[in-house]
Amino acid sequence: MEQMNTLKSWPEAAPRLIAVAAGRAPADTVIRQGKWVNVQSREVLDGYDIAIAEGRFAAIAPDLSGAIGPDTQVIEANGRFMLPGLIDGHMHIESGMLTPAEFAAAVIPHGTTTMFTDPHEIANVLGLAGVRMMHDEALMQPVSIFTQMPSCAPSAPGLETTGFEISAEDVAEAMTWPGIIGLGEMMNFPGVIAGDPKMLAEIAATQDARKTVGGHYASPDKGAPFRAYLAGGPADDHEGTREDDAIARVRNGMRSMMRLGSAWYDVKTQITAVTEKGLDPRNFILCTDDCHSGTLVEDGHMNRVYRHAVACGCPPLVALQMCTVNTATHFGLERELGSIAPGRRADVILSSDLVTLPVETVIARGRIVAEGGRLLAECPHYAWPESARQTVHLGKHLTAADFAIAAPEGANTVTAKVIGVVENQAPTKALTAELAVADGLAQPDAAKDIAQIALVERHRGTGGVVNGFVSGFGYTGRMAIGSTVAHDSHHMIVVGTDRDSMAAAANRLGEMGGGITVWKDGAEIAAVPLPIAGLMSDDPAAEVAARASRMVAAMAECGCTLNNAYMQHSLLALVVIPEIRISDLGLVDVTRFELTDLFE
Amino acid sequence: MEQMNTLKSWPEAAPRLIAVAAGRAPADTVIRQGKWVNVQSREVLDGYDIAIAEGRFAAIAPDLSGAIGPDTQVIEANGRFMLPGLIDGHMHIESGMLTPAEFAAAVIPHGTTTMFTDPHEIANVLGLAGVRMMHDEALMQPVSIFTQMPSCAPSAPGLETTGFEISAEDVAEAMTWPGIIGLGEMMNFPGVIAGDPKMLAEIAATQDARKTVGGHYASPDKGAPFRAYLAGGPADDHEGTREDDAIARVRNGMRSMMRLGSAWYDVKTQITAVTEKGLDPRNFILCTDDCHSGTLVEDGHMNRVYRHAVACGCPPLVALQMCTVNTATHFGLERELGSIAPGRRADVILSSDLVTLPVETVIARGRIVAEGGRLLAECPHYAWPESARQTVHLGKHLTAADFAIAAPEGANTVTAKVIGVVENQAPTKALTAELAVADGLAQPDAAKDIAQIALVERHRGTGGVVNGFVSGFGYTGRMAIGSTVAHDSHHMIVVGTDRDSMAAAANRLGEMGGGITVWKDGAEIAAVPLPIAGLMSDDPAAEVAARASRMVAAMAECGCTLNNAYMQHSLLALVVIPEIRISDLGLVDVTRFELTDLFE
Repeated sequence: MEQMNTLKSWPEAAPRLIAVAAGRAPADTVIRQGKWVNVQSREVLDGYDIAIAEGRFAAIAPDLSGAIGPDTQVIEANGRFMLPGLIDGHMHIESGMLTPAEFAAAVIPHGTTTMFTDPHEIANVLGLAGVRMMHDEALMQPVSIFTQMPSCAPSAPGLETTGFEISAEDVAEAMTWPGIIGLGEMMNFPGVIAGDPKMLAEIAATQDARKTVGGHYASPDKGAPFRAYLAGGPADDHEGTREDDAIARVRNGMRSMMRLGSAWYDVKTQITAVTEKGLDPRNFILCTDDCHSGTLVEDGHMNRVYRHAVACGCPPLVALQMCTVNTATHFGLERELGSIAPGRRADVILSSDLVTLPVETVIARGRIVAEGGRLLAECPHYAWPESARQTVHLGKHLTAADFAIAAPEGANTVTAKVIGVVENQAPTKALTAELAVADGLAQPDAAKDIAQIALVERHRGTGGVVNGFVSGFGYTGRMAIGSTVAHDSHHMIVVGTDRDSMAAAANRLGEMGGGITVWKDGAEIAAVPLPIAGLMSDDPAAEVAARASRMVAAMAECGCTLNNAYMQHSLLALVVIPEIRISDLGLVDVTRFELTDLFE
Repeated sequence: MEQMNTLKSWPEAAPRLIAVAAGRAPADTVIRQGKWVNVQSREVLDGYDIAIAEGRFAAIAPDLSGAIGPDTQVIEANGRFMLPGLIDGHMHIESGMLTPAEFAAAVIPHGTTTMFTDPHEIANVLGLAGVRMMHDEALMQPVSIFTQMPSCAPSAPGLETTGFEISAEDVAEAMTWPGIIGLGEMMNFPGVIAGDPKMLAEIAATQDARKTVGGHYASPDKGAPFRAYLAGGPADDHEGTREDDAIARVRNGMRSMMRLGSAWYDVKTQITAVTEKGLDPRNFILCTDDCHSGTLVEDGHMNRVYRHAVACGCPPLVALQMCTVNTATHFGLERELGSIAPGRRADVILSSDLVTLPVETVIARGRIVAEGGRLLAECPHYAWPESARQTVHLGKHLTAADFAIAAPEGANTVTAKVIGVVENQAPTKALTAELAVADGLAQPDAAKDIAQIALVERHRGTGGVVNGFVSGFGYTGRMAIGSTVAHDSHHMIVVGTDRDSMAAAANRLGEMGGGITVWKDGAEIAAVPLPIAGLMSDDPAAEVAARASRMVAAMAECGCTLNNAYMQHSLLALVVIPEIRISDLGLVDVTRFELTDLFE
């Protein structure tokens, strides 16, 4: 696995590593006298030195002072724990609304030195070219960011139109790229179970390249459909939420990825498979899946997941294996990273305590990249082309008329289907409501907490707008909120109580090149510009987190009472999760996987 | 990893596996109602069915009777344990004096369904072409035999002449063959430590092919030389003999292979790293390294190693992981074999007891290959070409004169260096002895237990004979024993008390095409023909074992009192183990790695 960053491969570095280990040459860096946290043997060994050369571990021994030459950097561990840098086993960078560079900059001080990332969102907007851009910026970073090739764009063929589609040929091509480690989560589990040739071709291309197939089996059914999915080839799954989910996956030779994201809490409920049921922990892995920038700024990243696992009763060394060597082994990288052992990438955290895990010093590839929470390395930016910065194609200036919902001729009231938002949950409820008609148009109804929702086509500039109704946000007054983060096809979702405000929000996103905008009483009261693919900012995480925080406050000012309601907003077009959603093709009944009419 | 045998890859088999698992198609085979020995979770789960299709596991569940169609083979487990077929993590087929086919035929009834084999011996005789023949016959078998490309032929460059040499280019070429899984044990550990470019190039070719580098660090020194070897890249080592050897390897990110061969007893002394010191067992692997045909016929193979590990106090499920999933993971095959889980090769043992492990039924790739110790599968023979069957090239008819050792002119006695054989040990002792001179020739001395030894060149027909003296066998009377198994260069070693007998033995081996012959009082009293490369027979193991047993008896009839003395005989030319050996270039001082004179 090559890195565009300057790291030599082990065989390239071997002559030097051997010379240092043999005592014939000085090391680049020596870490003196710490506790070797050994995730291979599951031990803590006091009083060790570590010699590093060419960004890799050359030797670990009680005394390597002989490897200190005049130009050797000496780092005093002073008896602290020396543990491998932490690994996130599965995640989406776009969830942080940050580019890979800024995501890396945010998580390195937390001790994350390796990430397995699935750029599924940009794949929907920019296709294979977008994946390549993410991949290329990932390889420029001072830490290791591997890319899982997205498998499912569109997520729901026939029910939505994405900016681009991913084909089996795209997958086969991506497998030849240096930073591609496997296939991103195979979300189309009904397709695999049905033997869909396209899905099986993507899996085959990955297996033939001897890479890892990511899984996503989002169902509690562990009968025949589960077994069929297992037989299809996915090697891991992070969609388990209960102890028996984790156990079933591991018994069947999958690795169980347990996630603690900004809105995922699936560690506590599953780690009992190890802590109480006593299963061999080697097949359990920790990951985040999705982290908002605010979480990264305020709470942490994999260090947060590790601490949580320990707080759930997992022995520290076992939890540490779950975010180091277990993950490396899963992706075929056990001799490349994930432990402090000769030849591996020299990724080390120095910490005074293994339970609370204060991340005091972070070393990646032998260089100090963070100290006391402060980033000390450069995280270079990719030269994102205009094609990636200008992705909001509205095709026209939108007006209130584009958001008008014509009632059937002559009707005084209508019975409309309404998307019912449920607090803290991804699924929606399929509601119906009697709505008034005025000037021939069906009207939203603040008293019933029914606003309008529009899906504005933004990939091809068709000018298409699909209108409907949504309930549950609690919006009042004259407002609108628009977002180009609109899983998974990432058109534009606008929700509002007022058609002029909705048009203004949509046009504003067009000018801004994407992001989020909140309008109240005819003026913008918050904005989160996401100029890259309409999904990401290349500003620092703290700035993006502050804007996102202001945006959430602005939603509340518009009357929204839900916890974390922006997540609900951005998922309203996610036509793979029941019960009812909106897409560029119309209203979608996600219990039947078919388009449906707005009016009964 | 493709097999020339008809097994489909997982992606090729996936449509059928999915259909069977989903309940849409019948299985080829269903094993009914056994205990699922789960090496992934380290549990035994009672009351499970296993469905198999295309030679791979399709599903494991409490009731798969729905997968039984009219043509489905049903195997009743009747509550017995269903465990994965056993894996030998490192071994040399040639040590059994059997071809891969006959070796497989011998071990399949013992439950071995996967072997990682290093055809180092044939590489010395026939080079890359010989490795390819072994590789090709391996792929024809009903079980999985992976080939580790030999790394060190010659073992000791400059001290011996092999039939062929292995180059770094040979290694790179072999990495493209379907059955090559990695590099065979890197015995030239001084070369790696010194940074020898050829050795590093072989390792690099293997790592660049993302395959596994086998190790061999035969030294108790765990200081700088050990660390330099680790930094060179070998991923495993089976040369450890003490607990601290195993611990040091695992802590440094190697896998510790613990062997129980016919003459290796390194499990009991090292497994305490797990059973007493509590190290994570995932990095420990069981193997045989070298098994004689007699061991295979009388005692078993990996089932013998497993039982021994359990007898040493290792919990059965942990010991089983050490010869199934740990090994598969090490070689990057964890999703291909080594556990009973969907998609993997359907290799299963049915057994009534997990401690004594009676191997009642053996299933490989979904077919019953042995039942009650009886082989039920065909193990096809490769069409070994004449070049492999005619490898004993003497160049001339030898006579007693070829074995005459001229004393320095005018000497009445000589002080000669003598190779001292030590019972049950591979190292020899460098002795000296006063020997009489008669007719100008230095004479052996039965009273002092000093016989003659000759290294007869047999690869290029040079007619070269190197003569010397050996002590320790206890030979008396008029006798000779010759062997073309003569590690590692496999010329011909003849030991005798009588020069005419020595010439007769050598000529007989030339006629026989290689093997072992024992002569007493002018007549052959035992013979083990090994026509393939002078190393292997393609007769069944039981026949070869009987001949070998007769050969050992014949050695005793010649006065030999040592245990297992044939091993000592065949190692007398192993110029990498101290203290003194013989090669085609002369007497070798293996403490200094240089040629030395016979007379002081």
